[in-house]
Amino acid sequence: MTLGPTTIGDGTVAVIAGPCAVETPEQMAATAAAVAGHGAVGLRGGVFKPRTWPYSFQGLKWDGLDLLVAARERTGLPFITEVCEPEHVKRLAEVVDGFQIGTRNMQNFALLTAVGQSGLPVVLKRGFGCTVEEALAAAEYLLQEGNDQVVLCERGIRTFEPWARFTLDVTAVALWKERTHLPVMADPSHSGGRPELVEPLALAAIAAGADALLVDVHVRPEEALCDGAQALRPAQFAGLMDRLGRAAAGLGRRLAEPAATVPPAEGECA
Amino acid sequence: MTLGPTTIGDGTVAVIAGPCAVETPEQMAATAAAVAGHGAVGLRGGVFKPRTWPYSFQGLKWDGLDLLVAARERTGLPFITEVCEPEHVKRLAEVVDGFQIGTRNMQNFALLTAVGQSGLPVVLKRGFGCTVEEALAAAEYLLQEGNDQVVLCERGIRTFEPWARFTLDVTAVALWKERTHLPVMADPSHSGGRPELVEPLALAAIAAGADALLVDVHVRPEEALCDGAQALRPAQFAGLMDRLGRAAAGLGRRLAEPAATVPPAEGECA
Amino acid sequence: MTLGPTTIGDGTVAVIAGPCAVETPEQMAATAAAVAGHGAVGLRGGVFKPRTWPYSFQGLKWDGLDLLVAARERTGLPFITEVCEPEHVKRLAEVVDGFQIGTRNMQNFALLTAVGQSGLPVVLKRGFGCTVEEALAAAEYLLQEGNDQVVLCERGIRTFEPWARFTLDVTAVALWKERTHLPVMADPSHSGGRPELVEPLALAAIAAGADALLVDVHVRPEEALCDGAQALRPAQFAGLMDRLGRAAAGLGRRLAEPAATVPPAEGECA
Amino acid sequence: MTLGPTTIGDGTVAVIAGPCAVETPEQMAATAAAVAGHGAVGLRGGVFKPRTWPYSFQGLKWDGLDLLVAARERTGLPFITEVCEPEHVKRLAEVVDGFQIGTRNMQNFALLTAVGQSGLPVVLKRGFGCTVEEALAAAEYLLQEGNDQVVLCERGIRTFEPWARFTLDVTAVALWKERTHLPVMADPSHSGGRPELVEPLALAAIAAGADALLVDVHVRPEEALCDGAQALRPAQFAGLMDRLGRAAAGLGRRLAEPAATVPPAEGECA
Repeated sequence: MTLGPTTIGDGTVAVIAGPCAVETPEQMAATAAAVAGHGAVGLRGGVFKPRTWPYSFQGLKWDGLDLLVAARERTGLPFITEVCEPEHVKRLAEVVDGFQIGTRNMQNFALLTAVGQSGLPVVLKRGFGCTVEEALAAAEYLLQEGNDQVVLCERGIRTFEPWARFTLDVTAVALWKERTHLPVMADPSHSGGRPELVEPLALAAIAAGADALLVDVHVRPEEALCDGAQALRPAQFAGLMDRLGRAAAGLGRRLAEPAATVPPAEGECA
Repeated sequence: MTLGPTTIGDGTVAVIAGPCAVETPEQMAATAAAVAGHGAVGLRGGVFKPRTWPYSFQGLKWDGLDLLVAARERTGLPFITEVCEPEHVKRLAEVVDGFQIGTRNMQNFALLTAVGQSGLPVVLKRGFGCTVEEALAAAEYLLQEGNDQVVLCERGIRTFEPWARFTLDVTAVALWKERTHLPVMADPSHSGGRPELVEPLALAAIAAGADALLVDVHVRPEEALCDGAQALRPAQFAGLMDRLGRAAAGLGRRLAEPAATVPPAEGECA
Repeated sequence: MTLGPTTIGDGTVAVIAGPCAVETPEQMAATAAAVAGHGAVGLRGGVFKPRTWPYSFQGLKWDGLDLLVAARERTGLPFITEVCEPEHVKRLAEVVDGFQIGTRNMQNFALLTAVGQSGLPVVLKRGFGCTVEEALAAAEYLLQEGNDQVVLCERGIRTFEPWARFTLDVTAVALWKERTHLPVMADPSHSGGRPELVEPLALAAIAAGADALLVDVHVRPEEALCDGAQALRPAQFAGLMDRLGRAAAGLGRRLAEPAATVPPAEGECA
Repeated sequence: MTLGPTTIGDGTVAVIAGPCAVETPEQMAATAAAVAGHGAVGLRGGVFKPRTWPYSFQGLKWDGLDLLVAARERTGLPFITEVCEPEHVKRLAEVVDGFQIGTRNMQNFALLTAVGQSGLPVVLKRGFGCTVEEALAAAEYLLQEGNDQVVLCERGIRTFEPWARFTLDVTAVALWKERTHLPVMADPSHSGGRPELVEPLALAAIAAGADALLVDVHVRPEEALCDGAQALRPAQFAGLMDRLGRAAAGLGRRLAEPAATVPPAEGECA
């Protein structure tokens, strides 16, 4: 899969990072600058947020898109964002660099077909109650529209274990690498649900063969409107990238080169 | 919830039955006659079938709707059918008596909102990887649009147990009855995945407090294009209805009266 | 299986009840009188309690056995109790009417063998992480010692659902009834973990085909040293037995006749 | 934990390897020589095998112990073996270097107490249906007997995913490292259930923070009497150790030094 100038799945370790939800111009700009400064190859940020309860913050919707575009202009990094409705695909496709299909929509087949037709890169997250095989079947809905710009993303499954939000299934990473040519990503932020778990889970996913990571970063997690409890602060993200680079070397790999190298914003790196 | 002349949730036991997928005029007519003849209060039949793999039979789509309408005319029974896309809601709402939201779409929030706005009765199936609470939250998306014609449906969850297709969670039935005023349904066909399991699971669900059942029936299961392996034959359905009626009496309840009493088709009852 | 004068698995519905743990002479005597007075065919009470943490109450051990014996003498009901160690089997076998093998010991094969050699009736609880087939395999360890006095007991499995302590798997009940001649029991107390869930789960298990139930009853649940939160009070137990009797009739069955009919103790029936 | 001259938990990566079951003098000697030759710090081999069905091979029992002792003499490596019954502890303690408590016995509290009293090193495997917290509670049974030579071992849990035998829970590794001072081990062989999955799972576990690995190796997996399908051949094990060493370096760690360096047996290294 090609995201901007980066090829995901070429043996390097690519990191896409940013806030779970786009919230304010300041938050998005500062977070984007931070992740760009520490080696991410792409930005993430949700503007349409599928939420369990209808009373929760549902994202800035179309207004948030401008903030992602602005962040891309400032950092030079491509961005992906979650798409939740088939009828949003065309309008989003005009501006985004890639789509994310969320865990709750892995088997939303109309959405898969519409995103497949866009031809744009897509990160397909595994449903938290879906099997490794079902994720391959869902990818097939994208592929049969002629779109082969697909990354499979493990983001944790539902198990009986209560001490983590979800259980990251690293075996899924290994199985996908064994049985398909599609690149594989992991989301250590949504699986563990706590910043302390992001680094061990990120390293484990890469060691199991993942090509890329999707990491929640927020300049002020305590003020986040969505999933702030799991976001890394920029300094923590910097530490993660450092350890990831070293671990990748031990695995005979290296971090993917970002499109743009931006120095970390002053004062934000520990 | 009111489906045709039947109130689901008034203490009676209501059964909605029919084929998993609408396939041919003969199949739909014969199956509808059979289930009507044995006491079902409503028909089910899928025309838009969300399938794991894109190569599987996806349903007759709009063409199948006419067969459901014809079955309603012949039997006098209202029907429900699954809706998968928000943009299908309006057109379907012109002819259906009620909607079904499938397990894979329980958290398809755009779909929930559109169905909520239709004001029509809706059977909301629990996601097989979703909690009891998340189903209540999904119902809230329907209710906040002013639609209170909602039934929660337990249809089995994913567990480690491999000898059944899914594990029917009767505790969910009891929990929903305890914590909400919404009526509760169970689908013993999709959970067990085999005709032999339908009766014990149906009885268990009613005993746990379910107000209604959704049962797969097919005149020739061996020829079914979708989930035929779990469908009851008409004679098996007749036996189920008999046992359900007796069990309901033991629980101080009775089967809901169907809108129309149609004699079983000749020669099909064991 | 024969427990005292009662045959479990002859089509009737048998209920074994009592406190989770034997605690004091007064508690055991009063609880035994209550359950005997409301139609239980056997008593339960743990004296060796396998507890997750070593600091929790581990049971009265051998001292508690006398209280069970006294309760049997007063009520005329046979009792079962959990055995946790192979070397306890012989000494326990001199006094108990039947053994219970707990969920954590379903695959304690040395224990299974020793209990099999005793020839006494045994309630084999399914491991909460074990499959339906593994329970059959564990029963085989008992059967191959020549002991066919075995009841399989479903007591809830581990799933992702957090609103119940365990998820009662009624499909397991149906599968065991289909695939073996062994009688099947269910434990609605340990699965639901709350008194409000006992009745719906008990009815569901019977409707799915269970031959017997194991129910926690305590005269003062708020003072219980183990699992008090899930025990029924005597009046609740009386209500359960009444509804069970009616439901059994609807299923063409009836409650098993207790060995002794003891009037409820004064003032304890609602 | 100290196993022979090796300290597990000192920051290095220690590997204990050997056949799932001790079968013949030739098999044990050749396998031990192979794993010793490629850098393992300890041997594993089961003589008492807890098997789901009573008709399966149950191990060589006491006769097998001599083969482990002989392998220790030949290689200089300490060995651990599984103990299943409290009354076996004393006799085993006279010869073994450490105990393994298997997944089915994690909550066999009498066994935990007896092993705790032995004072010998013990690998405590997490029950496949038990939580991270319950494993800590089980360890407490060992610790309260004054035995602090305990390693917690993640070996895969039961989930709905059917493409692997168990789901290796790397989050458990991270959680244990965060919440206890006990060293942590992982068993990539029993979790994945296939040799192809051993390396990615082993690397993932180390990356998540595991101090040690337990790996099934067999000179002729196709002839193994127990779990042969998952064993690595010596050449595969050599490859694993090579990659582990490189990965450890990337994580700022190194492989633990074995007690003895034995050259690979002739002709067995690819």
